[in-house]
This record gives sequence, structure tokens and C-alpha cells, in this order.
Amino acid sequence: MKLATLRTGETGTTAALALGADGYLPLPARDVGELLALPDWQALVAAVAKGEKSAVVPANEAELAALLPTAGKVICCGLNYADHIQELGRERPDYPTLFAKYADTLIGAADAIEVYGSERVDWEAELAVVVGATLTRAGEEEAAAAIAGYTVANDVSMRDWQSRTLQWFQGKAFDATTPLGPVLVTADEFPAGHGFDVRGHVNGELVQHGNSSTLVFGPARLLSYISQFTTLRPGDVVLTGTPGGVGMGMEPPRFLKDGDVLRTEIDGIGQLENLVRIRPGATASH
Amino acid sequence: MKLATLRTGETGTTAALALGADGYLPLPARDVGELLALPDWQALVAAVAKGEKSAVVPANEAELAALLPTAGKVICCGLNYADHIQELGRERPDYPTLFAKYADTLIGAADAIEVYGSERVDWEAELAVVVGATLTRAGEEEAAAAIAGYTVANDVSMRDWQSRTLQWFQGKAFDATTPLGPVLVTADEFPAGHGFDVRGHVNGELVQHGNSSTLVFGPARLLSYISQFTTLRPGDVVLTGTPGGVGMGMEPPRFLKDGDVLRTEIDGIGQLENLVRIRPGATASH
Repeated sequence: MKLATLRTGETGTTAALALGADGYLPLPARDVGELLALPDWQALVAAVAKGEKSAVVPANEAELAALLPTAGKVICCGLNYADHIQELGRERPDYPTLFAKYADTLIGAADAIEVYGSERVDWEAELAVVVGATLTRAGEEEAAAAIAGYTVANDVSMRDWQSRTLQWFQGKAFDATTPLGPVLVTADEFPAGHGFDVRGHVNGELVQHGNSSTLVFGPARLLSYISQFTTLRPGDVVLTGTPGGVGMGMEPPRFLKDGDVLRTEIDGIGQLENLVRIRPGATASH
Repeated sequence: MKLATLRTGETGTTAALALGADGYLPLPARDVGELLALPDWQALVAAVAKGEKSAVVPANEAELAALLPTAGKVICCGLNYADHIQELGRERPDYPTLFAKYADTLIGAADAIEVYGSERVDWEAELAVVVGATLTRAGEEEAAAAIAGYTVANDVSMRDWQSRTLQWFQGKAFDATTPLGPVLVTADEFPAGHGFDVRGHVNGELVQHGNSSTLVFGPARLLSYISQFTTLRPGDVVLTGTPGGVGMGMEPPRFLKDGDVLRTEIDGIGQLENLVRIRPGATASH
């Protein structure tokens, strides 16, 4: 099945079952993360799906929020595609390179990316893995069984801030810069290991193209590894890294401009399409 | 005033006003972070303090939880004391080196630090700044006014994991390894700029000793800088970095052993005293 988080009114959200062209059927949880934390949420969704359909939100009226607007953990893996590792001139790693974001970074599949005070805004199309069970020091088999499903992310990165210091966090954690969605495709419908294409476009031009089968650290391995040091819970999300083709790897380097449109897509899941807005920073000293 | 978060029953917590030897007066919020998010929390605390004292928890019966067990953001600054920068052989930075943790890392002032699967557990005594108002792209003056107060932290670091990749996150984000407390001292009672001693002891031996007046990036500057890219909210906390004297800087390097006692103290705030427990990791492959 496919799940989404819809906006309701000014500030509210609701989890919903995505019915394709038929729209979205609201579910009794505020977002997909909250839904995944309910015991036996699959049965709940099935029961709602069998019931009254009068509440369906037509597709053209639905406004997608970030899929997991209240995710407790948004953990990202860098340097996870062989071609991206190569374009950065690095060696194939023994361990996953991990960094953290907060849920404030997340926006919906059609929201504008609003960046304040960066002149080197770059793209990173990524497959994201959504956690469906609590994992503490789990082996790979347990981790695989705990994958709720998959979605699409773009780990938009402010390269000027990212390279100011040894730690990437400040260039990766800008509020409202990481689109996540449009839907979660449950693991049973998306065998990630089989290999799915991940593509990034800028103003319609294909700039990134990778395949999930070439990930150095696959989804279950990443979740197992992370769970050795920190507990993962339903609704947490792990971004698996970006394939080659980022702007800073180009000759000359290329960055997003105000008004550009960034499109990120993965076959079998869907696409993000985000207008880029680049604003001046608030303080001249930074 | 001094504020604490106490454990109540199996899993509950309550914010409390710390009355020194007289104990703790519970406040109507689940923890200090939730208290700081209430409008006019100072007046609320004053009203409770003037009322009935029968609810006071004697000091010897109080069990301290992590000061901010549900902090939305725990952002750390590395390389912020000149002597620590020197012991690591680095240059004085133009920008703060920042990385993120999650609240799962936090434990109370007297809790055991339980580490699974690291053989290089190191200490980092730190002054922590607690946010008291929402800050988005704030200048330093606004940031200074938004400091609720200060507390003590030890950014216990698993150096083997920290050095596996370029990003420190995995060595810094182990669950239940960052003691935070014992109390928040409100900013009016703790003029951090005047210079306070930060000390770390292992089994009673002084190993770290710095002074907050020598921070490269002071509390208001850090909060202002961070708020340029991500919103800070009441109950968020920023760890300001550690002075010289960490174990990995010693000749030969020295790390914590199972059964060691780590004590971290800042004059005018109080101390953390944490037994160190080092356990084997769950999987041989990591």
C-alpha cells in the first residue's frame, strides 16, 4: 500500500491511504509516523479501506505535507553510491558515513525549498527508508523486517555552509530544505534490493541517475548499523545517500538558483517537485 | 533560580524548582523543557514557590532525570576552547564546528553511562546553554535575551566510532551516554561571560579544567549562528564544546574503563557524577 501525510486546515495534518487517481482516504493518525507507531496499523488501514469512502480527498484537492513531519530521527548516509564516492575523489568506505538532521528540515513533495543565506545550494536525490518497529542493537534480519517502507528525499545541501568546518551538519540542517514523499510505499510492494532508479532533474534536465542496487550499504544494513548505537523507532527515517551527479561535482560546479525547479523521482514510488527560493541571510556577519 | 527534572514513578518526570538542601518543589510541567515552553513560566514558578510547600521532595529522595529528556534539538559545538584546539593540532576556527545529537543520548546527573560496543570511550566536560525562546535568524542581542540558563554536560564520545568516518555523529550519538544537569541555573544568576571553571574528573583525578571566558564562540554567538539555518525553541540545548584534557589527547591516549566514575562540574551550577558501564556490542561484525 501507499501512505501519505496530508495537510488539513492551517496547521493540521492527517495520515492517509493513497488511492492513486482516486485520491486519499484519511486515516486516524496525524501523520504517517504516528500511524506506524500504532500497534497493528496494517489492520487499521485495511479496516478503514473497507469502510465508507465519503471522506476521500480528491487527488487535485490534496496538499501533501512532509511524509514524516514529526520524525524523531532523520539520519543520513553520505558516500554510499560508488559513482558519487568517485566524483568526490574518495575511497569505498568500510563504515557508513552518517550525519543527523532534525524534522524541521522536512517539507512536502510539492513545497517550495526556501533557503536563507546560502549561495551554493546543491541537490542530492535519495532513496529514504522508513522505520516501522523499534530497533536496538538489531541484526540485519531483524532490521530488514522492521522496514515499514520507502520514500523519496532530496537532501538539499548548502555547500558553502557544509564546507565551513569538518562537520557537514550546518550545511545539511537548514529548515524546510529536505522534501520527503510523496508517499511511503510499504516494503512488501517495493523490493529495494532488486534495484530501482533514483533520478534528479533541474528545470527538466536529468542531472542525477543512480540505481539502488549499487548502494554500498543497503537499507537493512544501515538500520542495523545505526541501531548499534541509537534506538530507531516507528516513523524515523534514514536517507540512504545520493548517486553521482551533484552540482559541486560538475566542472565548473553548478548550484541552484532562485526560481529553479528540482524534481526527484524513484520508479515505483513517485516524485518530488520543488520550486527553489533563495533568500538573503539575516545577518551580514555570517 | 535553579530548575531540575525529577523522575516520578517508573517512567514519569516532573519539572521542579531546586531549593538546595531543602529539596525540590514540583512544578506543573513534565520536564524543564516543557516548563520553558509555557508562556510566562517565571511567574508560574514564583506563584508555586509562594504556595503550599507540602509537596516538596526531600533532596535525599529526589532522583534526577536528564534535565531536558525531550529536547527537540541537542546541538554541539566542537573545537571551541583554544587549549583543546591546540591539543588536537588544529587552527582557531572562523566558524563553529557543529554536530547534532538526539535526546536519546541524554541521562540524569547521577545515572550510569552505559556504552555498548566501544573500546575508546572518552570524556568531554562542557557548559551547556538552554534555549528559552524561539529563535529564527536572530542577531546576537536577541539570542542573548533568549538564553533561559545554563547547565553541565559531558559529551561522552566513542572515539573508535567517531573516527570511522569523516562525520563524528556515530561516535557522539550513543544512547544514554550524555549526562545533562543537575540543574538549570537561570541566566540572571549565571553571567556566563564572566568566566566559570569547567572541570572533569575521572575517579577523582582532575583531567580537564577550562574557563568559559576562553570560549572562541560564546553562548549568544552560538545560538545566533545556529538560528541562521535552523529554528531554536524553548528546551533546546547547545553544548558549547570541551576544554583541553580529553583522553585521546593524552600520551599515551587514555580511555574510560568499566567501573570508572566520571565527575563533571561547573562552579555555580553543580556537578554530574556518573558510573561508567562498558558492555560488549551486540554484533561481532561491527
